[in-house]
Amino acid sequence: MAASGEEVKLLGVWPSPYVIKVKIALELKGVRYEYLEQEIWENKSELLLKSNPVYKKVPVLIHNDRPVCESAIILQYIDEVWAGARPSILPSDPYERAIARFWAGYFEDTWFYGAIKILQVKTEKEKAEAIEQSFAGLSLLEETYEKSFKGKPFFGGDNIGYLDIALGSFLGWVKTIEKMSGLKLIDGAKFPLLATWAERFCSVATVKEHIPKTDKMIEYCSKVLQPKWHALNN
Amino acid sequence: MAASGEEVKLLGVWPSPYVIKVKIALELKGVRYEYLEQEIWENKSELLLKSNPVYKKVPVLIHNDRPVCESAIILQYIDEVWAGARPSILPSDPYERAIARFWAGYFEDTWFYGAIKILQVKTEKEKAEAIEQSFAGLSLLEETYEKSFKGKPFFGGDNIGYLDIALGSFLGWVKTIEKMSGLKLIDGAKFPLLATWAERFCSVATVKEHIPKTDKMIEYCSKVLQPKWHALNN
Repeated sequence: MAASGEEVKLLGVWPSPYVIKVKIALELKGVRYEYLEQEIWENKSELLLKSNPVYKKVPVLIHNDRPVCESAIILQYIDEVWAGARPSILPSDPYERAIARFWAGYFEDTWFYGAIKILQVKTEKEKAEAIEQSFAGLSLLEETYEKSFKGKPFFGGDNIGYLDIALGSFLGWVKTIEKMSGLKLIDGAKFPLLATWAERFCSVATVKEHIPKTDKMIEYCSKVLQPKWHALNN
Repeated sequence: MAASGEEVKLLGVWPSPYVIKVKIALELKGVRYEYLEQEIWENKSELLLKSNPVYKKVPVLIHNDRPVCESAIILQYIDEVWAGARPSILPSDPYERAIARFWAGYFEDTWFYGAIKILQVKTEKEKAEAIEQSFAGLSLLEETYEKSFKGKPFFGGDNIGYLDIALGSFLGWVKTIEKMSGLKLIDGAKFPLLATWAERFCSVATVKEHIPKTDKMIEYCSKVLQPKWHALNN
């Protein structure tokens, strides 16, 4: 929606799960915005440097010329500014909000950096450790689903909420890691609730278009990221 | 306050700025609680392991047997649960909330880990880098104060708010780093607004008692932390 006279811009790069989070949140709230794809390796735009002088990273949401940085903060900002529009992203109950914030934070600050190591590490031993840690994290999350969210289609209840967006935005990467490593991470036999949830999340029309295709991700990962990781590790 | 029948426990360790954050927030909201000092190096309590199985860290707030972990999440939980009690911790305006969350996150996730390196690193070169980074972070924060908060006694306006608590809880550590390294970090000549704010924050009665004395911190740092850092680095 975005009332007339309002200007909403999103600075991003297409493969970033943190940018995808913001796209999904804006989409769910029905906020119209201008998306500006950025260079993040070199030649960062003046607009990005000016809008996020501390981290110089995407995503940045610019709302009426005022920048908001960090995807978790942006999501809460969107939920608070467009509070009347569509269902809330965060749950209304303070304890459920805390749980959603905790698991979203764990998944994006800890779990994902562990899982991506499966593609980054050089030895079989390091790879085995990265796999073990990834499975341990998914086990904790499956238990949480069982204990607190079972029977609900989404972590947010009947609708996609904060934790769904935070986890779901990484599913394109999860599939990429799975396909490139030949290893099933969100394995239906091991994590039936998470596997069903992931399938349900990705089939929602407003979400689907924002999850990059696995083949495109694999190409990006092989051609852009892996040479950079390789250069960093040598 | 904590209505009768409510049970609030805080698991913490006294030198942790993250625990101090929660103590100050509970104090400002007038919430009565039981404080349980924890062992964090070995012999972690069953209660801690059960309450925070993911990170096994303090602080954990246990409210009516339900644990909430991670200090930023706990602060927001306290603000939301005891919403009617005393002034809000977070600003009411969504953009001001985003700014407070951003700088709090930067200070505790990035700046502090840079500043503590001044005591951890082994070479003069590394120390010079850590000092330069610490000053660069304080410059950015001083600029933000100048731009967005000038003329207000606190980042929260007339009252101590989210960003005051998040920054102020580290002041015991800042003084410890300053005294142990012989270097003034929050230097009134370089950062007049921050220096005045820090003095004002520490003189507030409800805050003062929660900031550990510098001599006690120095003793803890020399006897407990530095031998551990030394062991890790060798």
